[in-house]
Amino acid sequence: MQMLLTSLDLLGTFVFALSGAAAGVRHRVDLFGVLVLAFVAAVAGGLTRDVLIGAVPPAAISDWKYLAVSFAAALAIFYRHGAFDRLQSLVLLFDAMGLALFAVVGTQKALQHGMDPVMAALLGMIAGIGGGMARDLLLAQVPAVLRSELYATAALAGAAIVVIGHVLELPSVPAAIAGALLCFGLRLGAIRLGWRLPVVQAPPER
Amino acid sequence: MQMLLTSLDLLGTFVFALSGAAAGVRHRVDLFGVLVLAFVAAVAGGLTRDVLIGAVPPAAISDWKYLAVSFAAALAIFYRHGAFDRLQSLVLLFDAMGLALFAVVGTQKALQHGMDPVMAALLGMIAGIGGGMARDLLLAQVPAVLRSELYATAALAGAAIVVIGHVLELPSVPAAIAGALLCFGLRLGAIRLGWRLPVVQAPPER
Amino acid sequence: MQMLLTSLDLLGTFVFALSGAAAGVRHRVDLFGVLVLAFVAAVAGGLTRDVLIGAVPPAAISDWKYLAVSFAAALAIFYRHGAFDRLQSLVLLFDAMGLALFAVVGTQKALQHGMDPVMAALLGMIAGIGGGMARDLLLAQVPAVLRSELYATAALAGAAIVVIGHVLELPSVPAAIAGALLCFGLRLGAIRLGWRLPVVQAPPER
Repeated sequence: MQMLLTSLDLLGTFVFALSGAAAGVRHRVDLFGVLVLAFVAAVAGGLTRDVLIGAVPPAAISDWKYLAVSFAAALAIFYRHGAFDRLQSLVLLFDAMGLALFAVVGTQKALQHGMDPVMAALLGMIAGIGGGMARDLLLAQVPAVLRSELYATAALAGAAIVVIGHVLELPSVPAAIAGALLCFGLRLGAIRLGWRLPVVQAPPER
Repeated sequence: MQMLLTSLDLLGTFVFALSGAAAGVRHRVDLFGVLVLAFVAAVAGGLTRDVLIGAVPPAAISDWKYLAVSFAAALAIFYRHGAFDRLQSLVLLFDAMGLALFAVVGTQKALQHGMDPVMAALLGMIAGIGGGMARDLLLAQVPAVLRSELYATAALAGAAIVVIGHVLELPSVPAAIAGALLCFGLRLGAIRLGWRLPVVQAPPER
Repeated sequence: MQMLLTSLDLLGTFVFALSGAAAGVRHRVDLFGVLVLAFVAAVAGGLTRDVLIGAVPPAAISDWKYLAVSFAAALAIFYRHGAFDRLQSLVLLFDAMGLALFAVVGTQKALQHGMDPVMAALLGMIAGIGGGMARDLLLAQVPAVLRSELYATAALAGAAIVVIGHVLELPSVPAAIAGALLCFGLRLGAIRLGWRLPVVQAPPER
């Protein structure tokens, strides 16, 4: 179980690093900026999760594998992005995968540390949205989580599946897979099919 | 005393959540974006305070009441904002209340954890300004604290009253009320009457 | 050794505070905004380092000297900036000094806390770039670290020298000086002589 969690955490790290690197190349930052963006996008969610549950030093900075995986992703995007002709789609796709993986892994790690179930789902959501928020903030953009697309909702839905599985004492691997698929599916639906949550028509400012 | 602190902390959470939600509606983010902005604005200050004094997991993510209060505030603003015709004034007003409450509560919590008095006032100020800073950063705006209005000064003045009361061993409830009123009053004076701190006329860039 | 580290940490705090204050004056924020920017730029890197290695409460908020040094720097810039006719150059120069000092001090502090050498260099880099990132984010700008100039590279190079010295058991003071000079030199070369890392020409978006 612990090994599975670590593997999924590294996979989430990899895809978020891809999204950060692709965003960096799109904004024409230099090689090191791409490495920094990849690493920040990859570890911000997990770092926040670990600091909040008191698991310091966080895995992301005490285990070299997180750094290695981030840099591999950054170099792949930096030198091979010509192979991908739509960087923006790539950012969104990898971001959706990372969101799903981190929401699920973050929730399970919080449950393991004895957090209350509702709060574990919240921490999973924070772990999921943290990487994309950090990436967008560094590029001085309003984070995706606040633009009109199912984003935090998808992370929370995935985290909720994991928590429900935990409370009902279902086996945790299928619950994790179901949670990740639900989150990824909701996010893809938002991107490709334009699924939306309600937006308020604010009254004109006076 | 502990119950009073928790109540004031929740009240501060509520008003900062209102300010975050109103800012979100004003920027036309979707329902979940409004919930996220409300929650981030509400807990960023207290979270930072708790992480810095080593009180992890922070109250804001280990006690479900903070989440519930934030979401109640967000839903109230999202569905009832038509009742308020000037969202911008609302953001400023709730923000001023939250600033006053968190500056005072943050200072007292830091004193309880054995921080040095000067540092306790600083932590109170950080707790006060954290929520508004996070809210503004997420919307890609320069935070209010850096624009030309008494803001951090007001938080520090309120925190200082609490610290002075503590050092002189005065009863803590009146000191807290006096500190909160001073902070709120200074901030209102800045908003309504245009009170200002000096600004430098920078030389033209060459 | 401990005293030397603390002195260098305070010196780094001072120069980063100068850079934060100069950036604030350039953006015409008020006196307190200048104090806040100076303090945030000065302590963000060290704070992040200390929270990540579990050294809470961080030195920057438990020792009044960091606050005093930041405010002295802020007041010096606020009232005497007329003496400096190019604020932007000042920001860059002090930022480069702070980067070099914090990269070296951060690496050594991480080594003292028993972090793995590779991770210690990473933490040193984070400590170095944290202050400038926080300063730029607060002013709603894309951080210098992501623009096309040797920045994080310089911090990492300086940190690497310290780590190599540590692994080879060389005396730590000359290694620290060499690391700081290398970092400062790389950064100055980037600013004055236009040294660059490769930037990708991204394909046009479709």
